Amino acid sequence: MDIELVTIGTELVLGFTIDTNGATLAQLLAPLGIQVVRRTAVPDTPAVIRDAVREALERTKVVITTGGLGPTTDDLSKEAVAGVFGVPLEFHQGVWDRLVERYQRLLRKMPDSNRSQAYVPKGAAVLPNQWGSAPGLWLEGEPGLVIMLPGVPHEATELAKAEVVPRLAARVPAGRVVASRTLRTAGIAESSLADRLGPLEDGLAPVALAYLPGTSGVDLRLTVRDISPDQADRLLSDAAGTVRGRLGDHCFGEGSTTLAQALLERAGRCGKKLALAESCTGGLVGELLTAVPGSSSVFLGGVVAYHNAAKERLLGVPAEVLARHGAVSEESVLAMVRGAGDRFGADIAAAVTGIAGPDGGTEEKPVGTVWLGYLVDGRAEASRRGFSGTREEIRQRAAAGALFGLLRRLRG
Amino acid sequence: MDIELVTIGTELVLGFTIDTNGATLAQLLAPLGIQVVRRTAVPDTPAVIRDAVREALERTKVVITTGGLGPTTDDLSKEAVAGVFGVPLEFHQGVWDRLVERYQRLLRKMPDSNRSQAYVPKGAAVLPNQWGSAPGLWLEGEPGLVIMLPGVPHEATELAKAEVVPRLAARVPAGRVVASRTLRTAGIAESSLADRLGPLEDGLAPVALAYLPGTSGVDLRLTVRDISPDQADRLLSDAAGTVRGRLGDHCFGEGSTTLAQALLERAGRCGKKLALAESCTGGLVGELLTAVPGSSSVFLGGVVAYHNAAKERLLGVPAEVLARHGAVSEESVLAMVRGAGDRFGADIAAAVTGIAGPDGGTEEKPVGTVWLGYLVDGRAEASRRGFSGTREEIRQRAAAGALFGLLRRLRG
Repeated sequence: MDIELVTIGTELVLGFTIDTNGATLAQLLAPLGIQVVRRTAVPDTPAVIRDAVREALERTKVVITTGGLGPTTDDLSKEAVAGVFGVPLEFHQGVWDRLVERYQRLLRKMPDSNRSQAYVPKGAAVLPNQWGSAPGLWLEGEPGLVIMLPGVPHEATELAKAEVVPRLAARVPAGRVVASRTLRTAGIAESSLADRLGPLEDGLAPVALAYLPGTSGVDLRLTVRDISPDQADRLLSDAAGTVRGRLGDHCFGEGSTTLAQALLERAGRCGKKLALAESCTGGLVGELLTAVPGSSSVFLGGVVAYHNAAKERLLGVPAEVLARHGAVSEESVLAMVRGAGDRFGADIAAAVTGIAGPDGGTEEKPVGTVWLGYLVDGRAEASRRGFSGTREEIRQRAAAGALFGLLRRLRG
Repeated sequence: MDIELVTIGTELVLGFTIDTNGATLAQLLAPLGIQVVRRTAVPDTPAVIRDAVREALERTKVVITTGGLGPTTDDLSKEAVAGVFGVPLEFHQGVWDRLVERYQRLLRKMPDSNRSQAYVPKGAAVLPNQWGSAPGLWLEGEPGLVIMLPGVPHEATELAKAEVVPRLAARVPAGRVVASRTLRTAGIAESSLADRLGPLEDGLAPVALAYLPGTSGVDLRLTVRDISPDQADRLLSDAAGTVRGRLGDHCFGEGSTTLAQALLERAGRCGKKLALAESCTGGLVGELLTAVPGSSSVFLGGVVAYHNAAKERLLGVPAEVLARHGAVSEESVLAMVRGAGDRFGADIAAAVTGIAGPDGGTEEKPVGTVWLGYLVDGRAEASRRGFSGTREEIRQRAAAGALFGLLRRLRG
């Protein structure tokens, strides 16, 4: 089954909000063999919403919309979709009762503006939303099927999982799926990957290979279409094995595995406890590690030593090292990583100090210069890197570099 | 001028990559009075790209595409767009020379796969890309104007600024713009905002008001269209003043000002130095602060005390406080924030300790329970909060809560 998404919101089109719902929905539908073939973002303008939904229905007969179901005056999706089906909006007592109950449960007074949320296109089935105030809607008729979800990412995701996926699963013929698998790489450029893997690509068919560059590395996506789940599984496993064999430890994991997860898992397997000393990344490495549930079994903590005085006081970096070599130097990063290991009583540690810009660069140490330090069982090492991009990209790359560098140095 | 965006990439449609280029381009074009009226994401399938570009051209005559210009076999945008214009691809010596030169400068060997990047649709002007290997392309003819940019966000942004904005500016009649202004709020729910502001909305016309909820708070977007820059400026200033007057210190800034920026600025004005103690946010608050260039003049550093031993050793939280009250308690957060102030020699500090989930909740302290601590000139305060959402949302909300809480407590 092919499907189109229409994401609704003036803020999406004007660029004030980044749409993540489109990606989430596509990923939830793929395992059913339902393929998103196009995604259209339109403003909160009823005529434009109506045209986009109508055109999408003409191409695929099934459309999911997100957004425009909120309580404010710019939420006009229901009117527009009702227009496509030629039906009016009706007050829905069940939706109203749930809204009243929700506000009572949260011990809050319901604002009057929520009343508009109790109106639904005539004939629509209501998909109850226990994560927020706007229910999803399922409207089917001569033009096709339109499923409307709220724009708040958490609500759209949960509603899709609880209500949309099971209902759509019942409609697709079992046994033919679009299946894919992602291999995550770090420390190797896209064009070098293409050179290594290019000669293999024909041999991987019918598995298709896509390169997805990001700030922490390049993801490789293997995809097969219109195939039985068993066959898909076997083909993808074989292809993944071939590609991994060609890339060695540049491939650190699969799926949504992050560098932080890979490091925590390997460190956990080795029984090692981890600490950090961060300067230019300012807490980002710790943030990435603690984004992983259960990270507390490996990660002890870190010092964000942004100011030089903090490097001295909290990590014991000698003042004369900072004075003689500067905070961005091999000597400083080695002292930082040893200090982190020592203060936290950790077996392994990583340290980052660098110039993220936009200011602070010199000829000798231009913006993007980063020293990474590693401590593994008492042995400290440092490496100098040069990262490109904006301040944020340099910080992201430095954080990924630190995680990958420590991962490679751990034998698991 | 109205314009449409077509973002190209199977990974975008399948949901493996989040598109940010659409948002960046829309924001760069708005000040010229150029309005993005629709954005379509399509896979790397030449026929689908061709249809989407052709349909968009029929509606607006001007289309910007992103993606599909890379060196790998799934980069097919140029073929597709050349098809819309009925022209072939041609080898372009200038593009080739620049590629060779780029690789020489980076002291790298050029992979063979880069050669495809030197082919361009016949008649296209080349927009030189000094940030990466794929140049932008400007193709104009009977179907309209198509501007092709690479998909890598940094490259798309820089090329748009350097090459696209100036060229498009020369084509739009000066003097009529779409102008908007964002007011950023924190600590107040969307429906409460709607109740406070609803009665004002009619009086704001022709300024339109949109509500954009995010994890750190709700943004309010004020927009006027088709108006002279001077009038726009006056109308938006008046409207912003009215709205800010109604919201008091819930409105912490305008535009892209972050909570971290607002806090750093106010602390800088007061001559205060800032330190952090983070547990469940794991470095996120520090990351948000140090994302701001120049934060080092205010932010000294922080301790990520993830493990209880780290709370004792690095922040001096007494073991008996942790044992008796637990790490997520008023007593612990007060000891943490005092410890941070003390260890870093800071005037002000914030501390966060809580249960981000998905595990670790109890009946008394369910997932989402977070204690925030504040230290301002020796006076410590704590507040208990309950946040909803996923682990990541709880962490984001806790971090925003800490920044906003400290900001409100600083008189500046």
